Amino acid sequence: MGNSFGSLFKISTWGESHGGGVGVVIDGCPSMLPLDETDIQRDLDRRRPGQSKITTQRDETDSAEILSGVFEGKTLGTPIAILVRNEDARPDAYEHLKNTYRPSHADFTYDAKYGVRNWQGGGRSSARETIGRVAAGAVARKLLAESTDMEVLAWVSQIHEIRADVNTETVSFDDIESQITRCPDSEASEAMVSAITEAKKAGDSLGGTITCLIRGVPAGLGTPVFDRIEADLAKGMLSLPATKGFEIGSGFSSITMKGSEHNDGFEPGEHNPVTTSNNSGGVQGGITNGSEIIFRVAFKPTATISSPQETVNDENNPVTLEAKGRHDPCVLPRAVPMVEAMALLVITDHWLRDQSVRILDQ
Amino acid sequence: MGNSFGSLFKISTWGESHGGGVGVVIDGCPSMLPLDETDIQRDLDRRRPGQSKITTQRDETDSAEILSGVFEGKTLGTPIAILVRNEDARPDAYEHLKNTYRPSHADFTYDAKYGVRNWQGGGRSSARETIGRVAAGAVARKLLAESTDMEVLAWVSQIHEIRADVNTETVSFDDIESQITRCPDSEASEAMVSAITEAKKAGDSLGGTITCLIRGVPAGLGTPVFDRIEADLAKGMLSLPATKGFEIGSGFSSITMKGSEHNDGFEPGEHNPVTTSNNSGGVQGGITNGSEIIFRVAFKPTATISSPQETVNDENNPVTLEAKGRHDPCVLPRAVPMVEAMALLVITDHWLRDQSVRILDQ
Amino acid sequence: MGNSFGSLFKISTWGESHGGGVGVVIDGCPSMLPLDETDIQRDLDRRRPGQSKITTQRDETDSAEILSGVFEGKTLGTPIAILVRNEDARPDAYEHLKNTYRPSHADFTYDAKYGVRNWQGGGRSSARETIGRVAAGAVARKLLAESTDMEVLAWVSQIHEIRADVNTETVSFDDIESQITRCPDSEASEAMVSAITEAKKAGDSLGGTITCLIRGVPAGLGTPVFDRIEADLAKGMLSLPATKGFEIGSGFSSITMKGSEHNDGFEPGEHNPVTTSNNSGGVQGGITNGSEIIFRVAFKPTATISSPQETVNDENNPVTLEAKGRHDPCVLPRAVPMVEAMALLVITDHWLRDQSVRILDQ
Amino acid sequence: MGNSFGSLFKISTWGESHGGGVGVVIDGCPSMLPLDETDIQRDLDRRRPGQSKITTQRDETDSAEILSGVFEGKTLGTPIAILVRNEDARPDAYEHLKNTYRPSHADFTYDAKYGVRNWQGGGRSSARETIGRVAAGAVARKLLAESTDMEVLAWVSQIHEIRADVNTETVSFDDIESQITRCPDSEASEAMVSAITEAKKAGDSLGGTITCLIRGVPAGLGTPVFDRIEADLAKGMLSLPATKGFEIGSGFSSITMKGSEHNDGFEPGEHNPVTTSNNSGGVQGGITNGSEIIFRVAFKPTATISSPQETVNDENNPVTLEAKGRHDPCVLPRAVPMVEAMALLVITDHWLRDQSVRILDQ
Repeated sequence: MGNSFGSLFKISTWGESHGGGVGVVIDGCPSMLPLDETDIQRDLDRRRPGQSKITTQRDETDSAEILSGVFEGKTLGTPIAILVRNEDARPDAYEHLKNTYRPSHADFTYDAKYGVRNWQGGGRSSARETIGRVAAGAVARKLLAESTDMEVLAWVSQIHEIRADVNTETVSFDDIESQITRCPDSEASEAMVSAITEAKKAGDSLGGTITCLIRGVPAGLGTPVFDRIEADLAKGMLSLPATKGFEIGSGFSSITMKGSEHNDGFEPGEHNPVTTSNNSGGVQGGITNGSEIIFRVAFKPTATISSPQETVNDENNPVTLEAKGRHDPCVLPRAVPMVEAMALLVITDHWLRDQSVRILDQ
Repeated sequence: MGNSFGSLFKISTWGESHGGGVGVVIDGCPSMLPLDETDIQRDLDRRRPGQSKITTQRDETDSAEILSGVFEGKTLGTPIAILVRNEDARPDAYEHLKNTYRPSHADFTYDAKYGVRNWQGGGRSSARETIGRVAAGAVARKLLAESTDMEVLAWVSQIHEIRADVNTETVSFDDIESQITRCPDSEASEAMVSAITEAKKAGDSLGGTITCLIRGVPAGLGTPVFDRIEADLAKGMLSLPATKGFEIGSGFSSITMKGSEHNDGFEPGEHNPVTTSNNSGGVQGGITNGSEIIFRVAFKPTATISSPQETVNDENNPVTLEAKGRHDPCVLPRAVPMVEAMALLVITDHWLRDQSVRILDQ
Repeated sequence: MGNSFGSLFKISTWGESHGGGVGVVIDGCPSMLPLDETDIQRDLDRRRPGQSKITTQRDETDSAEILSGVFEGKTLGTPIAILVRNEDARPDAYEHLKNTYRPSHADFTYDAKYGVRNWQGGGRSSARETIGRVAAGAVARKLLAESTDMEVLAWVSQIHEIRADVNTETVSFDDIESQITRCPDSEASEAMVSAITEAKKAGDSLGGTITCLIRGVPAGLGTPVFDRIEADLAKGMLSLPATKGFEIGSGFSSITMKGSEHNDGFEPGEHNPVTTSNNSGGVQGGITNGSEIIFRVAFKPTATISSPQETVNDENNPVTLEAKGRHDPCVLPRAVPMVEAMALLVITDHWLRDQSVRILDQ
Repeated sequence: MGNSFGSLFKISTWGESHGGGVGVVIDGCPSMLPLDETDIQRDLDRRRPGQSKITTQRDETDSAEILSGVFEGKTLGTPIAILVRNEDARPDAYEHLKNTYRPSHADFTYDAKYGVRNWQGGGRSSARETIGRVAAGAVARKLLAESTDMEVLAWVSQIHEIRADVNTETVSFDDIESQITRCPDSEASEAMVSAITEAKKAGDSLGGTITCLIRGVPAGLGTPVFDRIEADLAKGMLSLPATKGFEIGSGFSSITMKGSEHNDGFEPGEHNPVTTSNNSGGVQGGITNGSEIIFRVAFKPTATISSPQETVNDENNPVTLEAKGRHDPCVLPRAVPMVEAMALLVITDHWLRDQSVRILDQ
């Protein structure tokens, strides 16, 4: 338990940053979906290290191999296993961390829980684990594209003090990908690049927010009371490394609004009622209302920094840590496909679940 | 699916606001736990309507009956079924809502999903559904008290513009319960009472935040990668009615911190390393580190207000809605035990799960 | 865990033979299904004690109350909670069993596992627990009837040495219900009544087999590799009290056949291939092939007998047990609706699961 | 869904007979277990093709690679991914089966369910899928050996008309492995070899039974009401290819016994009551009683035979099939490790589950 996500579109990820590789098994993908490695590689390339000057210089191609579940270019309805080999493994680069607990990393907690940990590069707690999620998200994306109008789009909306100004009605995948920050506001993006570069030079790191938008959502997705869409999205997002918060629609800003300001009135739409505002973020009572889903995720500044830090070793003695590894001064540009992946997985799962709800009425 | 929460301490809630009643089945509570209805009633009384001048005047005693799983005052290890009958049911009071979709309620979305809804008082989307959660949370609280040092405490930390000043080291259950707002800062509490009263008079409503603190947490709870403690907490919180956001530790404020400021250094503790700050909120890599868990939940202003609102009916025609029901101008005081319940359920589940992880090492 | 069954049509049962009652929560029943208590009562009446001279004389009406999930005669898509109160509770009748472990009952094993047990009439291990299953099965039956051509029919096919001769093509519900044994072969039924009556007089008990037939099954139900239809049926049946074996199609008799005899050839059917024999019992590779599903379940002779037995008490000392309670000399007539219920639950669950498999192809 | 088994020791298998390979992910294995590929290979070698003159001559080494979850020779508590590449893939050997539905195979049913199938050698329905199960079972075996006294042992007890005479008190792993049939009764084994050889010559196939014995079982494993040990074992066994029946303890023979004969009396044991007979097969009320668990599984004669058979193609037209592939005339010798694997998985899962039941009592 703990390494699976979803119910009908269920994924199980496995793998450490060092060892044979990382991967995922997808159980529940409908049959007859055209699929090959290129569908997956596109998103893996968006999360891989070394893709730009503001990401870690660790260089791994992260090539996906589909091991099962696809035959003659179509899914079989059987589990889809995807493998990405670990490449740039330099375990000796971590030798100095073998007995040391890095601040705000999972070294101590893994030892506390399991009595053992793979100290080479974070092991299971490495963001490398998200490769399996991103690969599975790419399959979900293909499935949604083939059978619905839904589109999932995420972008960097803030880094440190720099906030982006983004028009959610018009922003496109290309706008986002045209910036190495994945912030579609080019002016803000430029400032972000400078801030990241400066932080890197200073041996420091930065956090920020990613905004995610889901367009073309039909009314009716989500299952009260525990599997509300926003509850599953919140779980998905907080299960990503380095995340500290989640908010949907008006989010934390709803606190200082009054009900009369906050309520989303309805007006007649073409077929169904539509809301005149979207403080709900597309979800009411845990079920989508046909508006766009919009939410934000907070990422802390990367825990790995180059300045010396006071900490303790695994014998509970104080030591000074000087980081030597290659790392991202800001994870957000590479986290965009991770956020999208988790959103895609949640939406796809609920969309499949919804197939059996109204069978008596169709 | 959708109405169960947890894996080893698993609860399944059922019930609408109008009908036979509401309840919960708890599957997985260890045997030999002393338990009777009074253990449950205490928390139910904290969430019941009519408990103070700032909550809805709907009056229901919400008396719990334990139907199974307890014998001669002890749990049997079999499912514990708990029933609370609906009492103050006045379905005719809702007749005018039969065909109308209230803004920011779940009326339209339930119809969109299921093609039918219980229009009497919200049905399944009513906060009355949380009775089952609170009852189950009370059982979890008893279990934790009997077998661990963990304590879960929540309070109202902000209502609208009024922020409380609370010392998390000293705040106690009695401090919180001494205020009808469940905000332990008496000055802020007084201001909150005024604000709520004023909003009520104006036919309006207010939102706010609840802070939750978990003390005495051992290191090692939580299961990466998807069932991280904070991921399960986020899901639990966002599954509560009216919630819009979740943040743990530094949360959204981590965005503007640098890694060198944000990292929680370690120093030698009595048996284990301890952190010198707690931006992590007690969790690193999804696993507790022995510090207190602390998180915050945003609640929107109550959707039910007394001022007239423009909306549509179930034939997609515009109508004006004038609310007539009794309701809470601010749900937060009654939501405190709900937040505690979900936290208790998450913690208890992970604590039971942890029993099988290190069997080779004990 | 352990008290839920199914994935999309998921039931959770609760309750002991003595205490507040027994019941079930059904999560996942589609909305818009016409349903009321009479739909459930019919099957409960078929399993209740005291229904004929060959069943226990314990007299309980076992009246079902639907507590939630139904509104104005239709299911809401929300959990359906069903409660049956315990009535004829005479706990003192069990006082002499308080410290004694009855042979081939679950007294010792519950104590060994939980350190405590409800010794009044079997507690959770009582067949009274199956009330929740039968009630849920009745809902599944209604759902299948409203939306498919599937029909589930079970009957007593053997008691002790007496085997029934039943034409599986023509046998009907009325044929079965016309006999108090629920064996539709009237001659065999008569002999069974005599055998049961004689066993009762002798203070002894009898076992037998129940055969279950599912008609109108579409091809395509069942999910390899673990959730094969026959695997889920086997689990369902072996989860019923007193069952010792399960076989599908040719079952154990396949052992002495050769492949050339055993294989079910195909011939062209109206729309699809049909088999010329049915040794497969309607399932190939875990998936239904459109033929009837047929399987058999072995029930041991009732463990409760009136003759004295040597056993031990909970202090591990030898004692002689003389049974005093009222009991069934043969459980099979009352077990027929239990077998049907588990079959209905399995079939319904897989039928709902199948809704999301071929969405790209429709 | 459908490709995972277990709750706390959860496995997910993937893979088709032709394609990248087959494998398994084990989620929930406790940390600190010494483990390497040799632990797994031993059982894989017992199920691999080409191991003796009575198995298929298809030759595959089935070498396991552990991709994750193990570090410096010990399990990490993270998912253990195991990969076995497909080797002897001769897809063209199956070209003639592309459009033909083989009798009593899963060709038609996979097409009916998924609208597509991998027709090269059975795809997902191939027994090659069980490699993942056997690999996971080997890990479970190691875990049980390191931490309990439990031992799981299976053998061929009948092939066609030939029944073995086996002393369950003394039979050992070596006795079983000393015979290529895996029937420890050497006389019966010899007769079985002749029968299998003869069937092979005749282009025919044989079925039989495998008996499984679990020694050293503590009292208390199993979770009523649905997750009874025998229910989970039944599911596990019926999820194996070619199985038609399951019986525990007295099984189907209990039918003709009376309660007074069938009941297992208790007598005082060293610490706990022990039974004087074992018709219960080690389980009462779904929970182990400390006696040995014993059960039997029926396997049908292999569906693949060399004699011509009448069947239909995927256009619903009659065709004559002449099998050309290499196959086992009798699957039982190779099925022994599969039965053991499923038993090991069930027992291990329940043993881990049991860790959290009596925490208040220890």
